[in-house]
Amino acid sequence: MENIKENAELNKLNHSCAHLMAQAVKHLYPNAKFWVGPVIEEGFYYDMDLGDVTLTDEDLEKISKEMKKIAKDGKRIVRKELTKEEALEMFKDDEYKVDLIENMPEGEVISCYTQGDFTDLCRGPHVESVKECKHFKLLRFSGAYYKGDANNKVLQRVYGVCFPTEEELEKHLQELEEQKERDHRKLGKELGIFMFSDLVGKGLPMWLPNGFILRRTLVDYITDKELAHGYQHVMTPSLGSVDLYKTSGHWDHYKEDMFPAMQLDNEAYVLRPMNCPHHMMMFKNSLHSYRDLPVRIAEIANDFRYESSGSLCGLERARAFTQNDSHIFCTKDQIKEEFKAVIDLILDVYKDFGFKDYRFRLSLRDKNNTEKYFGNDELWEQSEKELREVLESMHADYYEAEGEAAFYGPKLDVQVKSAIGHDVSLSTVQLDYQLPERFELTYIDENGEKQRPVVIHRAILGSLDRFVAFLLEETKGILPLWLAPIGVNIIPVNLEHHLAYAKEMESNLKKAGYRVSLDDRNEKLSYRMRESVVKKIPVTVILGQKEVDSKLISYRESDSEETTTVSISEFENYLQKRIEEKI
Amino acid sequence: MENIKENAELNKLNHSCAHLMAQAVKHLYPNAKFWVGPVIEEGFYYDMDLGDVTLTDEDLEKISKEMKKIAKDGKRIVRKELTKEEALEMFKDDEYKVDLIENMPEGEVISCYTQGDFTDLCRGPHVESVKECKHFKLLRFSGAYYKGDANNKVLQRVYGVCFPTEEELEKHLQELEEQKERDHRKLGKELGIFMFSDLVGKGLPMWLPNGFILRRTLVDYITDKELAHGYQHVMTPSLGSVDLYKTSGHWDHYKEDMFPAMQLDNEAYVLRPMNCPHHMMMFKNSLHSYRDLPVRIAEIANDFRYESSGSLCGLERARAFTQNDSHIFCTKDQIKEEFKAVIDLILDVYKDFGFKDYRFRLSLRDKNNTEKYFGNDELWEQSEKELREVLESMHADYYEAEGEAAFYGPKLDVQVKSAIGHDVSLSTVQLDYQLPERFELTYIDENGEKQRPVVIHRAILGSLDRFVAFLLEETKGILPLWLAPIGVNIIPVNLEHHLAYAKEMESNLKKAGYRVSLDDRNEKLSYRMRESVVKKIPVTVILGQKEVDSKLISYRESDSEETTTVSISEFENYLQKRIEEKI
Repeated sequence: MENIKENAELNKLNHSCAHLMAQAVKHLYPNAKFWVGPVIEEGFYYDMDLGDVTLTDEDLEKISKEMKKIAKDGKRIVRKELTKEEALEMFKDDEYKVDLIENMPEGEVISCYTQGDFTDLCRGPHVESVKECKHFKLLRFSGAYYKGDANNKVLQRVYGVCFPTEEELEKHLQELEEQKERDHRKLGKELGIFMFSDLVGKGLPMWLPNGFILRRTLVDYITDKELAHGYQHVMTPSLGSVDLYKTSGHWDHYKEDMFPAMQLDNEAYVLRPMNCPHHMMMFKNSLHSYRDLPVRIAEIANDFRYESSGSLCGLERARAFTQNDSHIFCTKDQIKEEFKAVIDLILDVYKDFGFKDYRFRLSLRDKNNTEKYFGNDELWEQSEKELREVLESMHADYYEAEGEAAFYGPKLDVQVKSAIGHDVSLSTVQLDYQLPERFELTYIDENGEKQRPVVIHRAILGSLDRFVAFLLEETKGILPLWLAPIGVNIIPVNLEHHLAYAKEMESNLKKAGYRVSLDDRNEKLSYRMRESVVKKIPVTVILGQKEVDSKLISYRESDSEETTTVSISEFENYLQKRIEEKI
Repeated sequence: MENIKENAELNKLNHSCAHLMAQAVKHLYPNAKFWVGPVIEEGFYYDMDLGDVTLTDEDLEKISKEMKKIAKDGKRIVRKELTKEEALEMFKDDEYKVDLIENMPEGEVISCYTQGDFTDLCRGPHVESVKECKHFKLLRFSGAYYKGDANNKVLQRVYGVCFPTEEELEKHLQELEEQKERDHRKLGKELGIFMFSDLVGKGLPMWLPNGFILRRTLVDYITDKELAHGYQHVMTPSLGSVDLYKTSGHWDHYKEDMFPAMQLDNEAYVLRPMNCPHHMMMFKNSLHSYRDLPVRIAEIANDFRYESSGSLCGLERARAFTQNDSHIFCTKDQIKEEFKAVIDLILDVYKDFGFKDYRFRLSLRDKNNTEKYFGNDELWEQSEKELREVLESMHADYYEAEGEAAFYGPKLDVQVKSAIGHDVSLSTVQLDYQLPERFELTYIDENGEKQRPVVIHRAILGSLDRFVAFLLEETKGILPLWLAPIGVNIIPVNLEHHLAYAKEMESNLKKAGYRVSLDDRNEKLSYRMRESVVKKIPVTVILGQKEVDSKLISYRESDSEETTTVSISEFENYLQKRIEEKI
């Protein structure tokens, strides 16, 4: 979706529309005073002092109507430059503007813009005429503390957005609606996937029973897949000593993003932001011959990072999260093969989830700044060449990003295009020449000599939390059968006559391993069917007299109004097929 | 096993034996000086300054021989009391004794004990004659810093133990051997179950690949069992705000056992020592009707407690651990039924693990101190009566412990007798009237009125870590097939002729869901078979010409030398049966 603030033309237009809104407000509330009206990513807002007035939906409509009138009138927007004294004189009755003027840096040009009967202090630029602002929509309103300080007065804030044409506005509003509908925070709440509690702590997701099942299914899926691909899963603690992170270098370079340390006796501990040091220590725990390599240590690992409370966003950005992480310890000769195997695994997983729109980004070092990077030229050139060869040999859709490598090695990210058009980085593969040095890792080569292994960091699903957010947004909460917390909801039409059959079906399906619910509440059929849709259950089974008499099953899919009636074995085949095909 | 220190007679005997050892050492090393020689749980030790001598196994034998000689000689042990001056004069050439004497509190009676040519400063008491000390064993030796300070000299410490008769000594030494063999720390290392690393952090278990499989199997087992019993599993974060623990009361009453708080912006967070507050907040997250109760929230939850580094003991006592935890929210009328259901679940699980030797301990309040407890008399009397009725109705082997209840409600613990004779508390069920108050939990009753639910805390496997320690010690590491990280190890007798058949078997068994390894190393058969035993793999399959020719399978069980030869389908039935019966 368009970022209004970043688009110079839209930015100007929305800024002018904020003035238009202020003018309309001034017409309706002659005592209104105005604080600031910036352009933001989603459009604009204006903070206004309307005395005792608290805005309502009706007020918003009135303001909107008045704006249309002014826009139709089509006054020109005229800039005028002022000295500080002139400005202070012009706005002397408005304490907000006086505050703004007095806080302007010395020497800054002060300007105001006038359109008809309305003048506002403003740096500009603006469009030529208010006429251009007629395709707008006031989106919502809220209270906002003056200067964001809870001790100050509450101002009225109105949000809006403006486009050059009605078509563009309509398209944008539709996208907004779509985005709202796909918002994982909304879906997560509606479907009982997760919750947050300020008392438990900001940015700490609590997985509700449905969320647990979804998480468990994902974790089992990726764990089994990785075990089958020769990974060894482990479990390591969510904290480590500060010395561990000093050894890894995180304490020097990543401390700002970590939780604060905890002092215990003579030691300091810290919640881990990533798992590499733990896996390094595990590799170091035993002797390794070249014959044992590659060693692929994988973990569904809990990590913690400090995020300011303002930057938190549901599961997308939290302070506690779980990574589908792995570190592969191999010889330099094995890099190419391991790298290819990881990409194969990524593609295999994406196929299972039906992700089709993605690109690989190969991040290389900046050739003009080689001293910024760890290790020698030969190492880098060789490994960059090999990674490129792997991508070429797989005919992968990739692009190169020079200068974007980590300082410890080149990396590959996979960017998946989301339903609302964002590029989301899900998977990553990173070569690392540095951690094996820092932890002094070794293996014994063919000649009995100690050698340093190379480490490949990789994540497939990435953060499981962010992955669930992504899945919910992609599917609008209608999860495929294998992932849905409840796969089949059974509704007997009449409790007296059809419940026994429904219970029999429930029991059979449970035995077959499906997650099934039975809605035996004494509610109307239509009510129960609607709720099954609202809960986004993939398959709703409706059992009435016909089904009981003929031992049939009628079902509906979550996104369809069509009812299909089949035999019990056909129904089981249908479910089986959906599970196998992961649809 | 006998705690020597706690048994007055054995304490005295072992103390005398320490003197006997000192006398023998003095004979062998005339310049030897002695620091302290206390009685401990496992016997005695003595810290000795032997100049430049560092003891060896041979020295220990010599000392032992000399002790036997002195004991046979049978000198009486004679006490003499001294003034401080006399004592200082007597030991004036021994800086260690001078130090001890000078640090004795004013007014304390100073005494020494003499046996033949040896006199030691000692408080006593001692046995009559060294003759009584002849049934001893010197167990081991180590270096020990004088006064435990790493800046001081290293003294030689020798450990020993003494019994009144040879039979008792032999029995004790056998038990020691048994205990050592069952030590979960030793087994955990040998079998690749877990490791510790000081750099990662003291008391923080790291689960190795085999440990992960064991943990995963246990977690899946108990989770599936609980889901089938109407529990809802959730996942909540391993930390919470300090305010959360203030609300629950832990911050006031349990802080000393918690990790220190972490300051984040304006809030303080702390690693959680238990999960109750998180589950309370989850219950509080939605409205509940009496029709929805009981709500059983369960979690395989990561917890963290502060333990001094000295008290840490492998998985038994760690700083990070995982609980098989649940909180049941119910009405007062449902306590009895829920309590019974929990006990049924415990019995069901114990049956699966083959635990037979256990007792229930019902902890009641102290009737003479009712003000110590939360809630009113009626509540307590009613619930204690109900819990007792449940146990009676189940014919459970239980005893009552008055005054041992938690202050928030009565509780039931299950004490399982371990292979080495310890009582281990595995499961617990606790009523709680207080947390629902503190968190102001409510449900809506039949009349539309708000009511407080009761909370039942319960753990079945308890801490999963401690449970694994217990399992390893019970089984000596020979885990039942369903739990063993590798269930079947296949050894082709000859790699050239039998490997193809071995690979076919491996593939078939893997497809059938077994955890299988194939030992295709170019090593002798006997070597590979011995290693399979050392690794304690439940079933070792040996495939030679006979097996290849007749499509047979020969196998051995881990604790047997007997080889059984069967058809492939018989072998699969055999495995299937062991999995089903969990043996």
